Amino acid sequence: VGERTPPDRLLADLEGLLGPAHLLRDPDLVAGYAQDWTGRWRGAPLAVARPGSTVEVAAVLAACHAAGVPVVPQGGNTGLVGAAAPRDGELVLSTRRLDRIEPTTRSAGPTLLTGAGVTVAAAHAAAAAAGFDFPVDLGSRDSATVGGIVATNAGGERVMRYGGLRHHVLGLEVVLADSSVVTRLAGLPKDNVGYDLPQLIVGSEGTLGVVTRVLWRLVPATPLRVVALAGVASVAEAVAVLAAARAALPTLSAAEFLLAEGLELVRAHLGLPAPLREPAAVYLLLEVAEAPRPGRAGAAEEELAELLATRDEVRDAVLARSPAGRGRLWRLREGHAEAIAAAGRPVKLDVAVPLGELARFVDLLPTVLAPGVRPVLFGHLAEGNVHVNLLGVGPDDVHAVTDAVLRLVAGLGGSISAEHGIGVAKLPWVGLGRSPADLAAMRAVKAALDPDGILSPGRLLPASV
Amino acid sequence: VGERTPPDRLLADLEGLLGPAHLLRDPDLVAGYAQDWTGRWRGAPLAVARPGSTVEVAAVLAACHAAGVPVVPQGGNTGLVGAAAPRDGELVLSTRRLDRIEPTTRSAGPTLLTGAGVTVAAAHAAAAAAGFDFPVDLGSRDSATVGGIVATNAGGERVMRYGGLRHHVLGLEVVLADSSVVTRLAGLPKDNVGYDLPQLIVGSEGTLGVVTRVLWRLVPATPLRVVALAGVASVAEAVAVLAAARAALPTLSAAEFLLAEGLELVRAHLGLPAPLREPAAVYLLLEVAEAPRPGRAGAAEEELAELLATRDEVRDAVLARSPAGRGRLWRLREGHAEAIAAAGRPVKLDVAVPLGELARFVDLLPTVLAPGVRPVLFGHLAEGNVHVNLLGVGPDDVHAVTDAVLRLVAGLGGSISAEHGIGVAKLPWVGLGRSPADLAAMRAVKAALDPDGILSPGRLLPASV
Repeated sequence: VGERTPPDRLLADLEGLLGPAHLLRDPDLVAGYAQDWTGRWRGAPLAVARPGSTVEVAAVLAACHAAGVPVVPQGGNTGLVGAAAPRDGELVLSTRRLDRIEPTTRSAGPTLLTGAGVTVAAAHAAAAAAGFDFPVDLGSRDSATVGGIVATNAGGERVMRYGGLRHHVLGLEVVLADSSVVTRLAGLPKDNVGYDLPQLIVGSEGTLGVVTRVLWRLVPATPLRVVALAGVASVAEAVAVLAAARAALPTLSAAEFLLAEGLELVRAHLGLPAPLREPAAVYLLLEVAEAPRPGRAGAAEEELAELLATRDEVRDAVLARSPAGRGRLWRLREGHAEAIAAAGRPVKLDVAVPLGELARFVDLLPTVLAPGVRPVLFGHLAEGNVHVNLLGVGPDDVHAVTDAVLRLVAGLGGSISAEHGIGVAKLPWVGLGRSPADLAAMRAVKAALDPDGILSPGRLLPASV
Repeated sequence: VGERTPPDRLLADLEGLLGPAHLLRDPDLVAGYAQDWTGRWRGAPLAVARPGSTVEVAAVLAACHAAGVPVVPQGGNTGLVGAAAPRDGELVLSTRRLDRIEPTTRSAGPTLLTGAGVTVAAAHAAAAAAGFDFPVDLGSRDSATVGGIVATNAGGERVMRYGGLRHHVLGLEVVLADSSVVTRLAGLPKDNVGYDLPQLIVGSEGTLGVVTRVLWRLVPATPLRVVALAGVASVAEAVAVLAAARAALPTLSAAEFLLAEGLELVRAHLGLPAPLREPAAVYLLLEVAEAPRPGRAGAAEEELAELLATRDEVRDAVLARSPAGRGRLWRLREGHAEAIAAAGRPVKLDVAVPLGELARFVDLLPTVLAPGVRPVLFGHLAEGNVHVNLLGVGPDDVHAVTDAVLRLVAGLGGSISAEHGIGVAKLPWVGLGRSPADLAAMRAVKAALDPDGILSPGRLLPASV
C-alpha cells in the first residue's frame, strides 16, 4: 500500500494539471459550487476542479484516488436531493467545461453527441438546428446539464410521449472511480456484447462514474405546438380527462397538473392575471405537438379543442398557439419552483403513485401533515408524478414530515423518488422503495466499481441496510 | 467455511424439493436440455431441475451454491451462442414451468406480467386477448421464452418500430446467485430509487441471475397488416428504399432483407414457387401495421403500394394482406434457419454494421472467406443487423473463419453480436467489441453479484482480459 498524497500536494498537482483558472480555491469562486440552489445542502469542499476533457477528468480521479480524497461530480447544480452538493473536504468535479457538441453520422437515425456539461437548452438548440427534437425537457433546462440529467435519469415533461430518459441514451462515455474510461459511443441500435454498463450509469447519481459524453437518440421535430389550460373540479376528473386525451390525441406531448393553491402562489409571485374566467380546484395543462403534414394542418389543435369542448369535466379552458401565449401558460406551471422558493424554504419531495391512486394520495396527504404545514402540489399527471412542496415545516420537523409523506406514498404502491433521485435527502427511506436483497445487490455493485468509496460517498445508498 | 454438499446429497435434496418429476436424471429426458438445437454445444449435465416457482428457483440456487455446483439457466433453448447449453457437471435450471401470466392493473398503461417460461407466442396471444400487441417478435416465437429473450436482450423484427427489447421491460423479478430475490414489479413509469438492476440483468445471458417474472409494456394493437416483397438490384438499393419507406410510411413495422441465394435455398427446401416474376439479387420484405381508424381504412396499404410503384429501384413487388398471403411471404424470411440447417451445420454469426456500411460489408465478406465456404445472409435491415450463415466450413476452420468475419465487422464500426449475445461462441472476440476498461468493469460486476462463479460460468466474459 502506497502512501497517500497529502492534500496540499494534491491541490498543487491538480493546479498543474488543469491550470490555475480551473482549480478554484478562492471562497468567492467556490461558493456557487458549495451548496445546492435551494440552500438545503452545503459543505466546505477542498476545491473545485473544472476539467476540460475526458482525459483531464480521468487524471483528476486518479489524483484524488491516490490522495484518498472523495470526489463529487456536479453538473448544473440543479439537483434537488443533495447528491451533487459537496460535503466537507470533498473535491467538487464540475463537468460544465465539457460543453462540446460533436458531429455524428445519421446512418442509424438522428443522434446528438454532447459533452456532459452541455445544458439541456443547448442540446435542444442543437437538435433543432439539425431538424429534430431533443426528447427530454424539464423546467431547469437553462442550467441543468445533460451529464446531470443522465446521472439522475431525470424524466421531465416528455416521458408520456417519448418514454423515460434512459431510453434515449444510445451510448455514453464515463470515467470510473479507478480513472479508467469506458466508451460506448458506436450508437448501434443492436449491440449485445456483455452487460449494459451505460444503463447502469444512468440514474446512479455520480456514485459509479463521471459521465463525460452522451450519445442521444433524437426524435422527429414537432414544431406545431398548441397548449391548453383546463379547469376541472378534482384530481379524479383530471385523470379522466387525461385518459380521454391519450385516446383521442396521438400528438399529446405533455400533461401537467396544478392545484388552485399553487396557481395562486405563482400568480401572486409573478403578478399574472387569472388564466380562466372562473377559478378551478385543479388545472390540467395539455400540450399537443406535431410535424407539419400536407392536408393535416391544424389537426392537432382541432382534436384538442374538440376534446376540451366535449368533456363534461372541463369547466373552462384556454388555448394558446403562439410562442408567447404558450409560454404564458407554461409559466404557470414552471413558475412553481421559483414562487415556492420565494415563499419559504420548502421540503421538496418528488414522488410517484400509480395513477389510479393519485386522487387518493392528494386527498390523504393533508391528514399526515402537522397543522400549519402548507402543501403545494403539482406534477406530471400521466406518470402519477407529484412534486410535493411543503411550506412551514420547521428544521426539526423535516425528518418527521418526510417520513410521513413517503410512508403514505409507499403504502399506495408508489415510488419515494420519481425523478430527483435519492442523494442524501431520501437516504433514510430507501428501504421503502427497495427490498434488503435489492439494496444488498446495489451495494455489491457500488463496492465492485468503487471499492475505496471515492465517488460521491454517502449518497444514494445508506452505509448499511 | 462450511463443507460442500456432495453431489449425491445435492440431487437427493433437489428431488425432495421439486419432486421426482421435476428433477430429471434419465438420459433420455435430459437429452433435450443437454445440447442446443443446432447441435453445436452439448454437455453432460448433473441433472435438469424444473422449479415451478420463484421460491423453488431460489432454493435450487441455494442448494447448488452450498454444493459448489454451477447452474446454467435455460429457457426455450433456442439460443445461438451456447449460453444456455450445459457444460459437464453443471445443473440445468429450466424455467419452462414458470409459465403463468398474471393479471396487472392498467393504471399506467397496458402491461403484461409473465413468468419467465412463457413463450413469446403465448405472450403475443395474451397481449392480443387484452387488446394490445406484444412489442417483441422473432422467428423462434413458438419455443423461445420471455425469460430467455430478456436474458439475451433479443431484438428481433420489431426494433425499428418500437425500439429494443430492454425498453419494454418495465420491471422484473430475478433470483441472484446467492439465492436472494430482487423483485421490481411496481411498473411505475418513473421510479428513480438507486441503480436500475433490471436493466443490468437484461442481456446478461444468465450470468448474473435467473429471471423468474417479467413485467412488459405493451403497445397498441395494429391488426391491419400488409406485407410486401420487393426485388432490387443491390443492398445499396435496398437501403435507399428503406430510407424512403421510413420517411413515407409511419406504419412501417418490419424491414427485412434476403439475398437471392438464401431465397433459393428456402424455396428448394420448402418447395415454394418463385415469389416474383423475375428473380432479383436482393429482396426487401416490408410490413406495415396499423390500428383501424375511421376514414383511414387501407391508408397504410395505399402508402406502401405507392412507395413500391414510384421507387425506381423496385423491379417487381408483390403485396399480401390476407393472413395466409402474409405468412407465405414471411415464410421466405423465417424459413432461412431451417433451410440452412438442412443444408449443413453452419457457422452462425449475428452481427450489425452501421447502415451506411452494410453494402460494403456484404461486398467484402466473400473476400475474407476461404474458397468453398458458402455464405447465406439475411437480416433486419434498419439496424444493419446481418445473420451471417456460413456453410461448408470444416470443424478445424470455425475459429479462423469466425475471426475473419468478426474482424471485418469491427473494422467497419459494427458489433460482433447484434442480438444473439456472446455465450461461449464469441468469447474469444469480446475484445473486438469492448475495451479492456469496459471488460474489467463487467468482470467486477460479475464478481460482485456472483463471487463464487455459480451462474453460467465461462459464458459472456473470458476468464481474463
